[in-house]
Amino acid sequence: MNPHYSESMALFKRASAVIPGGIYGHAAPAATVPGAFPYFAHHADGGRYWDVDGNAYIDLMCGYGPILLGYNHPEVNAVAAEVQAQGDCFNHPTEYTVRLAEKLTQTIDGADWAVFGKNGSDMTSWSIRTAREFTGKKRIAKATHAYHGIDPWCVPGFGGVITEDRAQIDGFEWNNIESLTALVEQQGDALAAIMLTPFHHPAFEDSALPTPEFVTAVNQLTQHYGILLIIDDVRCGFRLHPQGSHKLYGFEPDLICFSKALGNGYPISACVGRKAIKIAASKCFLTGSFWNAAVPMAAALKTIEIAERDQIAIQLERRGTQLVEGMLELGLRYGIPLQASGPAAMPYVRVADDHSFRKQQALCAAATQNGLYLHPHHNWFLCAAHTREVIDESLQRFEAALQGLEL
Amino acid sequence: MNPHYSESMALFKRASAVIPGGIYGHAAPAATVPGAFPYFAHHADGGRYWDVDGNAYIDLMCGYGPILLGYNHPEVNAVAAEVQAQGDCFNHPTEYTVRLAEKLTQTIDGADWAVFGKNGSDMTSWSIRTAREFTGKKRIAKATHAYHGIDPWCVPGFGGVITEDRAQIDGFEWNNIESLTALVEQQGDALAAIMLTPFHHPAFEDSALPTPEFVTAVNQLTQHYGILLIIDDVRCGFRLHPQGSHKLYGFEPDLICFSKALGNGYPISACVGRKAIKIAASKCFLTGSFWNAAVPMAAALKTIEIAERDQIAIQLERRGTQLVEGMLELGLRYGIPLQASGPAAMPYVRVADDHSFRKQQALCAAATQNGLYLHPHHNWFLCAAHTREVIDESLQRFEAALQGLEL
Repeated sequence: MNPHYSESMALFKRASAVIPGGIYGHAAPAATVPGAFPYFAHHADGGRYWDVDGNAYIDLMCGYGPILLGYNHPEVNAVAAEVQAQGDCFNHPTEYTVRLAEKLTQTIDGADWAVFGKNGSDMTSWSIRTAREFTGKKRIAKATHAYHGIDPWCVPGFGGVITEDRAQIDGFEWNNIESLTALVEQQGDALAAIMLTPFHHPAFEDSALPTPEFVTAVNQLTQHYGILLIIDDVRCGFRLHPQGSHKLYGFEPDLICFSKALGNGYPISACVGRKAIKIAASKCFLTGSFWNAAVPMAAALKTIEIAERDQIAIQLERRGTQLVEGMLELGLRYGIPLQASGPAAMPYVRVADDHSFRKQQALCAAATQNGLYLHPHHNWFLCAAHTREVIDESLQRFEAALQGLEL
Repeated sequence: MNPHYSESMALFKRASAVIPGGIYGHAAPAATVPGAFPYFAHHADGGRYWDVDGNAYIDLMCGYGPILLGYNHPEVNAVAAEVQAQGDCFNHPTEYTVRLAEKLTQTIDGADWAVFGKNGSDMTSWSIRTAREFTGKKRIAKATHAYHGIDPWCVPGFGGVITEDRAQIDGFEWNNIESLTALVEQQGDALAAIMLTPFHHPAFEDSALPTPEFVTAVNQLTQHYGILLIIDDVRCGFRLHPQGSHKLYGFEPDLICFSKALGNGYPISACVGRKAIKIAASKCFLTGSFWNAAVPMAAALKTIEIAERDQIAIQLERRGTQLVEGMLELGLRYGIPLQASGPAAMPYVRVADDHSFRKQQALCAAATQNGLYLHPHHNWFLCAAHTREVIDESLQRFEAALQGLEL
C-alpha cells in the first residue's frame, strides 16, 4: 500500500464494505494497477484534477472522455446554473431539447433527427432495436473486442449473461475485409445492422484507425445488402471532427450514437439518424425519468457552440501530436522503446514489445506518481484546457517518470 | 388546437421536424390527450410549474416522480451547486459515492450494499443479470402490465423487440396467488427472480395495493424455491416508507431498485441488495460515463436526510388523503362518480365506469385548464411542497373543473 494514497485507500476500505468490488466499472482498480493509482477524486479544474489525498495531476483521461473543453468550464457551467435555477427535470421536455435536436441535425453529417438519453448504452442498445424494426431482421454484427456498452448483448464479460442475449450477435475482425465479407456473405440477408466505432479502441490493445479499404468495404457491403451502418461515436464524438467522427474516415452511417463529450461532463447521450429511419425510430419506445432534463441539453448546446467556435478538434489534434511526438522522442532518449496508436486527440502510447503490459503499467504508474495521470490499458483523451504549455509540462513530468524508471 | 397552448404547439411542430414523434417516451402527447395538455415546460418551483405559454399549474405529477421535496429545493440545490463547483464527473468516484452507499445500507431495510446508475432501467436490467449470476438460472417472472423500464425484456410495446429478448420472461397476475403459484410450480426450478413493484401501478388501469395474502405467498414461494425477490421501487421509493416501500407492505426482497425521487430530480438510480448476493453482483459488469458523478450523489444524500428529518412519507400520506377525500366528496357533490386507488402519496383518482377513459380524459383536461395538472392514465405524485394550503387550492381548482364539465 502506497502511503501517498492513504486517503484513497481508507475510502476504498469503506467502499468495499458497502459496494460490490468497492469501485465498479471503468473506474475499478482492476482496470489499472491496484495500489499504484489514486482511487477517489476530490476536485478538478481545466486540464487537471486533485485526488482525495491532495495529489495534483495533469489529467490525460478527462473523466474517460466527457471533459472536452476542460473541467469546470466557466461558459458551460454558467449556462447550466442559469437553466438549473428555472428547474431541470419536468413533466415535459423544454425548448432546449428541441434546440439541441435542431443543432445536431444542422451539425452532424447525415443526421435528419435526434433522440436523447443518459448513457451511451441507452443509445447503442436502442439503435439496434431501431435497426431491427426498420429492416425486419434480427442479427447484429460488431467488431470483436469492440466496446459498445453494458447491455447483455455486448457487455464485456459474461456475468449474468444468458445464451439468448447474444444469440443474434455476430463478430468480425476490425479492418479485416475478408472477415467482414465472409460474415456478410453468410449472414447478409439476416443482418439488421453492423455497429462500428470510428476507430478501434479496445482496452488492452493498441488502437487501430480504419484503413480506407475497410471503410469502402463497410459502406459498400451495408448498402448492397440493405444492412444499416451504426457508428458508435460515444467515445470519440466531438473530439475528432465537428460533423461526427465518421466524417473524418469516410463511413456513411444510417444511425450515430453520441454521449461522453456531448455535454462536457453533464449527463446526456444522443442518437441521430437518417430520415428514412425516422418512422421506425418512433416505434421503438424509449424513455427515462431524467431524459428530458433541461440542464444537460443546455450544456450540450453550449459545448457544441464552443467546440465549433474554438475549432476544438483541430486544437486537440495539434496538442495530441505535440504530446505523442514528445513522448516518442523521450522514449528514444531514455532507451525505452514506445509506440503510439490512435488519433492524436485520443492517443495511446505504450511500451513496445510488452505483451503482459507490466512495463506499461510501471511506466504509467511512474507518470502518475510524477503528476501526469495516464491509463496503462485504455486510450487517453485530450481536452481544450491542455494548452501548449500544459503539454510541455506533461512532457517534463513524463521525462521525470522515465528518469527514475527501471523496466 | 387550443390557442392557450400556442407556444407548446409551435415548439411541437419544430420538434416533430427533428425528433421521431416530436416528443417521445412518457412525456409523449400520445400518453395524455393531444391538444388538451401543455407539451413543453418552462420553469418550476415548489409544487408548481409553468409551461412555455406562461400557464401556471399546481403539479400533481412531479416530473413523473423525481420531485419529492419540491422543485428547486433550496437545500438540495445549495449542496449540488457547492459540489458542482468542485467538479462533477471525474476519472474516479468521489467520497459522495461511498457516503451514499453507506447511507442507503443504514437506511433501507435489507440493504447490505449498493451500486449506482443513471436510469431506473439500468438497475432493473442489471438486477436480473445479478439474479441469474447468483442462482445460475435463467427465467424471470413479472406481473403482467407492470412497467420495469425500456430494455427489450420488459419494454412496453414490441418495436424492435425480437423473440429472444423475452424467451426467458414469464408473467403472472398481480395479487393473484393462484396465478403466481401455478407459475412457480411449473417454472420454479428455472426461475432466477420474481420482480415486483411495491404496489401495482400500470398505466390505463386502477392501481392495486398488494393483499397481505399475496405478500405472504410471494415471500414464501421465493424462499421455498430459492428464487430471488427483486422489488422495483423506482417509482415509489422514498414516497411511501423511509426504509423502502417493501417495508410498508411486508415484502422481503433480496434486491431493490431505486431511482426517481432518490435525488429530488438530479439523475441517479441505485440497486441495493443482501450480503449473500454481493459477490455475484461484483461479477456483473456495470458502468456508465456519468455514473460516478458527484453532484447527484450529494443531492441524494441531502434528499434522504431531509426526507427523514421532515418525515416526508407521513406528510405525503396526510396530504394525499386530504386530496383524495376532497376529490371524492366533490365528485359526489357534482354527480360525477369518482374512484380512487393506490396509496395516498401516489394516488390515482378517476371517473368510475369509464372503460374508454374518455370521461377521465375530459376531467383531467378540464382540471389542467383550471391550473391543476393531472394525468388521465397514470398514477399521480405528491411532493413535500404540496402543503395543506396547496391541496386546498388544488381542490378549489378541481371543483372549478367539475363545475364546467359535461360528461
